[in-house]
Parts: sequence; C-alpha cells; structure tokens
Amino acid sequence: MSPTFRLKNYFKPCLQSIPETSTVLHCKSSKLLLENGLVSPTGNGLYSFLPMGFRAVEKICKIIDNELEAIGALKLELPALTSIDLWKKTGRYDANNNELFVLKDRKERKYVLGPTHEETITNLVASSAPHPVRSLPIMLYQITAKYRDEPRPRYGLIRGREFIMKDLYTFDKSIEDAKVTYEKVSEGYDKIFRRLGLQFLKVEGPTGNMGGTVSHEYHYPSPIGDDRLLLCRACNTGVNVELDRPSQCSSCNGRLTETHGIEIGHTFLLGSKYSSALNATFINANGKTQPLEMGCYGIGVSRIVAAAVELLSSERQIRWPLEIAPFKVCIIPPKIGSKEEAATSFVDDIEKRLSKSKEYNGDILIDDRTNLTIGKRFMEAKKTGYPFIVIVGKNALDQTPKFELENLVKQTNEQLTFDQLMTHLDA
Amino acid sequence: MSPTFRLKNYFKPCLQSIPETSTVLHCKSSKLLLENGLVSPTGNGLYSFLPMGFRAVEKICKIIDNELEAIGALKLELPALTSIDLWKKTGRYDANNNELFVLKDRKERKYVLGPTHEETITNLVASSAPHPVRSLPIMLYQITAKYRDEPRPRYGLIRGREFIMKDLYTFDKSIEDAKVTYEKVSEGYDKIFRRLGLQFLKVEGPTGNMGGTVSHEYHYPSPIGDDRLLLCRACNTGVNVELDRPSQCSSCNGRLTETHGIEIGHTFLLGSKYSSALNATFINANGKTQPLEMGCYGIGVSRIVAAAVELLSSERQIRWPLEIAPFKVCIIPPKIGSKEEAATSFVDDIEKRLSKSKEYNGDILIDDRTNLTIGKRFMEAKKTGYPFIVIVGKNALDQTPKFELENLVKQTNEQLTFDQLMTHLDA
Repeated sequence: MSPTFRLKNYFKPCLQSIPETSTVLHCKSSKLLLENGLVSPTGNGLYSFLPMGFRAVEKICKIIDNELEAIGALKLELPALTSIDLWKKTGRYDANNNELFVLKDRKERKYVLGPTHEETITNLVASSAPHPVRSLPIMLYQITAKYRDEPRPRYGLIRGREFIMKDLYTFDKSIEDAKVTYEKVSEGYDKIFRRLGLQFLKVEGPTGNMGGTVSHEYHYPSPIGDDRLLLCRACNTGVNVELDRPSQCSSCNGRLTETHGIEIGHTFLLGSKYSSALNATFINANGKTQPLEMGCYGIGVSRIVAAAVELLSSERQIRWPLEIAPFKVCIIPPKIGSKEEAATSFVDDIEKRLSKSKEYNGDILIDDRTNLTIGKRFMEAKKTGYPFIVIVGKNALDQTPKFELENLVKQTNEQLTFDQLMTHLDA
Repeated sequence: MSPTFRLKNYFKPCLQSIPETSTVLHCKSSKLLLENGLVSPTGNGLYSFLPMGFRAVEKICKIIDNELEAIGALKLELPALTSIDLWKKTGRYDANNNELFVLKDRKERKYVLGPTHEETITNLVASSAPHPVRSLPIMLYQITAKYRDEPRPRYGLIRGREFIMKDLYTFDKSIEDAKVTYEKVSEGYDKIFRRLGLQFLKVEGPTGNMGGTVSHEYHYPSPIGDDRLLLCRACNTGVNVELDRPSQCSSCNGRLTETHGIEIGHTFLLGSKYSSALNATFINANGKTQPLEMGCYGIGVSRIVAAAVELLSSERQIRWPLEIAPFKVCIIPPKIGSKEEAATSFVDDIEKRLSKSKEYNGDILIDDRTNLTIGKRFMEAKKTGYPFIVIVGKNALDQTPKFELENLVKQTNEQLTFDQLMTHLDA
C-alpha cells in the first residue's frame, strides 16, 4: 500500500506575497502554481517542480505511458547532449541556430542540448539499419527535459527554456504504412487527451514544403495561447491560421471563428528528410536498402500542468482535472485544543478506508497542521484545488457523526455520515 | 493489465560485430549491454538507453521511489540548467571548473549543467526560509540526468558524461537531528541495495575537512572499480583508502584485505556549508534564524545497471538480479513450419496465466520471431539473461504436454507440465 502524506512535513511553500511586478506573473496559472507551492522559478524561463506539482507531472506521464504502450510504442531515453555534427548533417543547425543551447566540452567539441531528438533517434535507428520489413514499424518514445533558448520565455511553464516533453518517433517502409501508423498514434493521442479530462481542439497544422506530409496540432483554447486558430463550430474542425486563412469551413462551409490556443501536442508525418540524411534504411521487396518513412509526435508535459490550471481555475483558486490533481482527497482534522478534537480518531478511519480503494490509495493528503484553524486550512485546500476535501469538524461529534465533504468537481458541499461519504466517493 | 511484449517488433538491435578495437569496449558489461541491444553509444561517454535497457532503469527507480517514500522523502524535479552565480556563491565554480559543462544563453548569461544540485535545492529551500521547526526535516529528492565533463569517460555507463542519478537532500535544525535523519536515510539505502539483489559493501568515505561530518560509500566490489577499499572480512566493515590506510581493522583488529569497488551510492552529512552560503534557515528556540544542517545522498542509477551486469555475468551471457531484469520471463514458441507448430496455442495459455500474476504481469516477452529456430532464439534469450525462459517445443506434443523451463536464477533446466511450470514460477 502506498503511503498517505501529511502537510506538516510536506514541502509546499505557499508564497503569500509574490510582488505584483514580478516578471514571472504573466498569467493566472503561473501565479496560482507559484502561490500554492507547486513550482518555483529558478531563472528566466526555468522552473523547479516542487513535490506537489511533480505529482501532477507524474500522473500525466503515467497516462501517456499507458496509452503509448497500448499502441505498441516502446520507451527509451536519449541523452540531452547531441553532437553538433548530426545537426549539421540534417541542416537544422544553421536553421535553428538562435534557439539552440550549444556548449563545448573540454576538447572543444560542440554539442546541442536537445530541444527535440529527430537527429539522435534517426542516427540510432540507422546504426542497426537496414531493418528487415518484419520488424517495422519501429515506434520509440521518451519523456525527458528539453531545451530551447527562447528569446522571451513567458507564461511560466507554458513557454519555458527547459521543459518536460514526450517525444515519439516512428519508422515505416512506405508513406502508406507511415499514414497507418500516423492514424494509430493519433487515436492514442485522442485517448490521452480525453483521459487528461480537458476539452481540446485538434486542428490541421503547418506541414512545411515537403509535399504529401500531414500535421495536426492539439490545443487547449485560451486567450493566452500563442497560436491563432480558425474553428468551425458546426463540424468541429479547424486550422492554424499560420497554415491557411480560409473564409469558410472546407468541410461544411460553416462560419469560422478565431480563437487562441495553447499547443499541447503536435503530430507530424515527416517523410524521409532525416532518414535520408542519416541513412536510416530498411530492405525493400527488391532486396535494396531504402530510407524509412518517419513520423514524429510531441506532447508538452510540463506545459499541460500549467495549461490545465489556466483553463479550469478562477483568479484565486486552482481547479484540476480529477486525473491529474496532485492529491485526490485532502482530509482536515480538528484543531488542537478545540472541542472537536475528540473526533480526531475519525481521520484515521476515513484515511484507512479510502486507502483500501485503488482509486485513492497513495492519493490522500492529511492537513495535520492542527495548530491552524479548520477554516484557514479549508481555505488553503480549496485554493490548491484538491477535488475532494473532507472536514472532520464539529458535526463529527453528533450521535451519528457527520463529515463535511466539499466536492470541487461537482461543486457541492454536504454533511455526510461515514457510509454516505464512502458511497459519495465511490470508495 | 499491462501488455505482453513481442520480440519481432521490439527494438533490440543485437550487434553481432562490435570492432574489438572499439573504445567503448573497456569491460564485460559494456560489451554485453551493447551486443544485446540494451544501450547504444551516441558519443564519448554518452549513451542512449534502448527500450530493454530502460526497463532495468525504470525498475531501479521504482525500488528507490518506494523506499524513499517510506522514509518520508518527497520527489521533485529541478532544472539541469543552473545559474553560474549560485555556483560562485558556494565556491564550487572555481573548485570544479574543469568538470563542469558550462554554457551561455543568447544574452551571454552563463549556466552550469548540474552534475549534482546542492546549490539549486538549497537556494530553493532558502526561498521559503526561515522554516518553522515543525516542518523539519525537509527531505527532497529527484531522479534526473546529470552532467560531468569527465576527462576520460570509460567502462560504458559506469563512468559517463551524462548519466542518471538519484539525489536526495535533507535539512534539519541541528547536527543531532541531521544525524538521526542520516541514520534513517542509511536504513532506507540498505533496503534499496538489498532489494537490488546484489552483495554490496558499505565503507567509511572521505569526509573532507569540515569536522564532525560523516560519510559512507556503497560499493559493488569489482576489479574494474575506481575506488580502492580496505575491508575486514571478520566484522564486515571497511574504509576507502583515500580516507585512511589502517594496518588492521579498527573495530575488531582483524586483517584487512584490499579490493576495488564501483561506487553506487554515497551518503554525506554536509553540515551548513551550502545553507550558510545561500541563507537556507529555520527559526530556532530563541526566535532567531539559523542555517539548516544538511545531508546529501546519491545513488548512481544508470551505473547500477552496468555494475549489476558486470558483477553477475559471464563473458558471453548477461545475468540480472531478478528484480531489475528487463523482463522476468521469455516464452519461445515453435518455429513456423515445424512439427511442433501444432503446440503453438500453449504459448497463449502460458502467457495468459502468467499475466494474471502480479509478479509477471507486464514482465513477459514472447520471442515471436518464429522464422528462427528454437535453438537460435534460446541461445539469444540465455545471452540476454531473462531469468526464466520457457520453451514450447516438441515435448509440448506429448499426451501430457511438457514445457522446458530454463531457470537462470537457480541454474536448472527442467521439463514441466503446465501446472508444474506454474508452481515452479509460483504464479
């Protein structure tokens, strides 16, 4: 069984007073994540995930692992340090020079700190090429820190210089096969984003000039989003304005409305740009080697944490999608020295019973800072946005003890008996 | 239920011919990990973990998470990019200049790629200081990539330039409390290393010149280890020769023997060196602020993968501790077109039954490359070192079908009925 956590000893530094002029406060999510001790800035565009914020990250990673494993993708880990030679071979060093973090080792060899890993993975696949057709498609992904020297980092985690990203790369024998793989990954993506619990938009993205390639972007609609999208509400399709500026919907001729989106995922049929440059090949039907057809697929993991908070929260209180809330339940015991203190043992009863449920095991936090009033702790719990807040207060002293349940998902507040509480939480 | 994996589509490039002169082949583990498609070199001292190798990494991480959670440590994630200013404040920039990877951003600000995170974490704790005594000890850890510009990277993962490390930092109000925390973490470490399943040595390590500080190193004894240790076999204590060169054991006066060790963990009572320099404080009994007393604790995660292989394997075959083997069971179905092919359906039966057991769920690999002979696949399975290899071969056609179980842990090979097989595997 996983442990229950306690706030007295939990590192969640709630900053009361971030100066209003601070450059980190560009948006609601950034302010709320900082104030509630979920992240901490360590430099321009650089953030530490504090323990509670990192729980949200790990939950997102688990959902991703789960759905990518289900479509047959394999997880690996590539170094962040990439030889600059590989980046020169694909022509991306000169194209992205400004946004790359570049460093030298003691022998003056240059490395790129990977903002993404097309070069590394293609070179890796090339090292055991040519691949027999029966081993295709190859589908490999990782979840690691990525680096981009943004000219203007902003919106906290939404546009940082070091961030956590999931990047998946696929290798097929033909464009047709690569499209089948693309559809398969897209279905996996749809499942991931549905499980994350937030309404998302999927639009056509810029495809570049390579002919025959396909690209889709996943967005959370938000005024702080950097991308401008044109959406058809009638048939729920859309397009990034960078790509096109149609006057009406190409599917149903419906009216288009413009909205801003935070890009949280991107799928791309790459073709053979990288595989040709780096010799990642397979053996075709004629026994000849031929470059593999690639796809690449990203999800912005740390960005999703902030974007979710941005979308659901009020100016003063965080709200989480249930599946990625750092803790699902927060239990608030009586204040020390109060009349209700006699009811303290119910806290253990509730915690033990909830821990037996797979749904809540390891996902329970007890705010044992019993020197503080229930009211003060309740306010903080609501602000941090635990989906279910259980208060063991004065009604716990009734002949039939009752407990207050604040349900932030359904926005209800009820006094419930122990059994009703368990039924309500479906534990 | 977690999926069962299949080798036909598994990215495990078995290199048949690494040139004997290759500089990556400095030791047995490096050769075996490369040959079996578990890791792949991407540069001098830089390695990718391929899917199967990364499974071993994830298993080690899970054991660490589990035991550190049990002692109340919280997981977070700090950026690799650290402002050079922090390193100057603690005096470590000048002291370690050569081994640090340093880079500049577009505004010419300098950053260190963290080889370890004392500066970052202490600065983080300082940002919410002074801490009330009731919130102590603070115990924070992460598992991330670390960077060190080694002059001579060698032995593959054992001494690389980018590697995976677990680093834990603790903060207490007094040396006495910090020692209690030190003992608590040490007990956690003992559990972690016992669960990893390899005999380890724990010796006194160099403490530096700070007086009153304590340090212990965890080693796997191996001729390729960089550290020289003096051990007393009588009372099982030891010391790093860097620290001391006693002529006999200080505990029991026993004879000391010298051995080489691969350092896989290090615990250190740090004192207030970093907390003083960076103002990480608490409020003492007199209401004054005072620097926190720190401990720091590392485990070399990627190094353990290689060290485990180095210790257990022969020159030609990998052996894993059961708990970190990439897969626990490999099932080998009949060759296509063979007489035994009629028995193929047993593969599913075995797989389904094993998947129901918590012990094997998600830990099963089927070598479905049925174009290859059973013999060839069996050889490869033994070489990769899956602890249990199950062959559905010609005895599966007997009236009472029998299956061959090669048990690499007990080094036995038996023909077993379905029920005997399950009993043997305790599934």
